[in-house]
Amino acid sequence: MTKCPACLAPFAPDDYQALAIHLATRAQASEPDHVRWLNQNLTRTKTPAEELVPMLRDCFDLGRGPLSAWIRSKFIRKFFGPTPHPFVSALQHPSRAVLLGYVVEHQHFLRQWVRSCAFIMARTDASEVVHYELDNLNTEFGGAGERHPSHYELLLRMGESLGVGRADVLATPPLPSTRRAIAGWEEIASSESWVEALAAMHSLELIANRNLRAEGASVHYFDPKILDGDTVPDAAKAFLREGYEADVGHSEQALALVDRFAGERHLVEEVQATALRSADLFDDYLIARLERADSFEG
Amino acid sequence: MTKCPACLAPFAPDDYQALAIHLATRAQASEPDHVRWLNQNLTRTKTPAEELVPMLRDCFDLGRGPLSAWIRSKFIRKFFGPTPHPFVSALQHPSRAVLLGYVVEHQHFLRQWVRSCAFIMARTDASEVVHYELDNLNTEFGGAGERHPSHYELLLRMGESLGVGRADVLATPPLPSTRRAIAGWEEIASSESWVEALAAMHSLELIANRNLRAEGASVHYFDPKILDGDTVPDAAKAFLREGYEADVGHSEQALALVDRFAGERHLVEEVQATALRSADLFDDYLIARLERADSFEG
Repeated sequence: MTKCPACLAPFAPDDYQALAIHLATRAQASEPDHVRWLNQNLTRTKTPAEELVPMLRDCFDLGRGPLSAWIRSKFIRKFFGPTPHPFVSALQHPSRAVLLGYVVEHQHFLRQWVRSCAFIMARTDASEVVHYELDNLNTEFGGAGERHPSHYELLLRMGESLGVGRADVLATPPLPSTRRAIAGWEEIASSESWVEALAAMHSLELIANRNLRAEGASVHYFDPKILDGDTVPDAAKAFLREGYEADVGHSEQALALVDRFAGERHLVEEVQATALRSADLFDDYLIARLERADSFEG
Repeated sequence: MTKCPACLAPFAPDDYQALAIHLATRAQASEPDHVRWLNQNLTRTKTPAEELVPMLRDCFDLGRGPLSAWIRSKFIRKFFGPTPHPFVSALQHPSRAVLLGYVVEHQHFLRQWVRSCAFIMARTDASEVVHYELDNLNTEFGGAGERHPSHYELLLRMGESLGVGRADVLATPPLPSTRRAIAGWEEIASSESWVEALAAMHSLELIANRNLRAEGASVHYFDPKILDGDTVPDAAKAFLREGYEADVGHSEQALALVDRFAGERHLVEEVQATALRSADLFDDYLIARLERADSFEG
């Protein structure tokens, strides 16, 4: 089944004609998610539906690589292109405000992360996937005693080290863009197939995957030198190091599972659309971190 | 909201009149779950709806204790009464056939267990509940390295020690009663409130809670002496010991969470009905273990 990468509306398998008409119609009506997707992925000029069809075929063509290679290349293009995503640029050598923007919005992201991964665990029939998600949730939220705090705990400690207590962080509601992104992931995790949810959530862990430079990423998520210097507090280094160390494994294991199950269950087209949708939600969410950072400036 | 303890149909809060009419009508139509519930909980004789009302009030009366005490006493009455449940009787000094019946059906139960607990984790907004479920799933399914195998792994090893390989166990579909019980728990975990799901699933861990004798249980889940003797293989002792040691904590922590959240969220009546429904599903499922044991007899 083909799905719209901007709203996940379903179409017949390989029916790029119907998808092109849908995209053109929704863009014509100025629906922002469809306009954005067309602009960023196919063309910035108004184009008739029939001309979009070959562009769509090209965009979704896997070439000779596995599905995961296609997901990686789209992710790199979107977040680590010649002009990296603004949050990635800001995180190269982050200010206190940028790190605090990260903390305040990201605690909401991580709570949704738990829900999304738990839905995958609840809805899969594959025990490998259960073990993978359980491991992931232990790292991200469970932790393992005082010596191995969870990523969530490390995030709150980073906030404290920058002068914002955890009670304040926990009491701050998410910005509207964060709220909308979270609602999108909730919808994907609870309603789309678990294979799509797996791809949608764990492709996001590519953000801190330090292997992407070799595949064309212009920069890392942050300049790894900040882990050695003293430009950010130790608690911030501990938080950033955790992702830097865990997310290679998390994203690559998950994408190997996606390759396997999307193939076995004939969900390749669905996964392509849903992974792109998730990347757009993530884009908005990363902008929300910068919006929040503004409130800590000056 | 009052709910029918045999099918979870909803009624207005405290409307035992409507519930009584519903139960009488369904029993009149010989619907087996409603007939069974009436027989086991209120009366074995055909009784007009108006006479059922005070019986229902009495059955659902919490008295002065917390909700969890009511759940415990209903559970004890059902499984550990003067005539214990037939599976509990059989497990006091279990034959090879009984243990193998346990293994073959229980692997399906544990896979559903993962799904149910993951749904609770996905649907709760309380981080204590996430931590509780994560812990529980680590014990039951995740394990922690070779020295701390999961309960699921210990179950499969028990099967192997009795001469039935894990490939055979995993390839055997569940008996119809197991399948129906699993479908019931899936429905509760995915569709009823997470507080009800929490009560429904973790009240079942009372089965191996060794503190119930002090509250009137006629026997333990099994005669603890079998953990010391040599009447069952070591792998069976390892499996049974695990539950014996983990389930006190699992069931009591969960019931404390149920007391708290059922109170805060005004879900006491719902939890009462759903916990009773889950106990009836469990009753059927334990019988399925004995049915399966029959196939290993002789």
